[in-house]
Amino acid sequence: MEERVLISMLLDLYGELLTSKQKNIMNFYFNEDLSLSEISEINNTSRQATYDIIKRCHKLLLDYDSKLRLLEKEQKNFQIKKDIDIKLEELIKNIDINKRLELIEDIKVIIRDI
Amino acid sequence: MEERVLISMLLDLYGELLTSKQKNIMNFYFNEDLSLSEISEINNTSRQATYDIIKRCHKLLLDYDSKLRLLEKEQKNFQIKKDIDIKLEELIKNIDINKRLELIEDIKVIIRDI
Repeated sequence: MEERVLISMLLDLYGELLTSKQKNIMNFYFNEDLSLSEISEINNTSRQATYDIIKRCHKLLLDYDSKLRLLEKEQKNFQIKKDIDIKLEELIKNIDINKRLELIEDIKVIIRDI
Repeated sequence: MEERVLISMLLDLYGELLTSKQKNIMNFYFNEDLSLSEISEINNTSRQATYDIIKRCHKLLLDYDSKLRLLEKEQKNFQIKKDIDIKLEELIKNIDINKRLELIEDIKVIIRDI
């Protein structure tokens, strides 16, 4: 996954654990694609100070995710939804009772991992 | 929810964000039901120091959950699993095609919230 996309996703998951100032700067940089200079101007601070905050928060977000693994969980749930959806689509088509019971059993197994 | 049960659940969700020493003490106190004196003896520290760590971590866990709301999400997912299961049970019983399609549609709506 591209680093920028990764950090943007981690911001969604762990942004609340940052201060609002940190979150704003990370949002500007990773979601709104502002440059270090632009962000520094908005915050009335130096380019170096902005860079340091971004570097520190980047590490913090990776650190939170290495501990809580919410991104992995989110991706797993996304896959679960897709898998259930595929089974439901088969269930719509298929009218044989045995096949239907089999599909229902499959879904029961899939949802255990939610 | 009883406070002890709540903290035990929050420990499962956010324990990794504590240091291993903090996590051990919280586990002893909230999951293994050891007394402050017993924990202090194990850690070769004062009763007051143990109490302070428990109080601090208790606050930390509540604070993490007020920001990330993983407990609420976990309880919601638990309910989603139950709801899907109920629909699947109906689906097993019901053989009318229209009712079946309706149940399948219901499940599709439910899984959106995973």
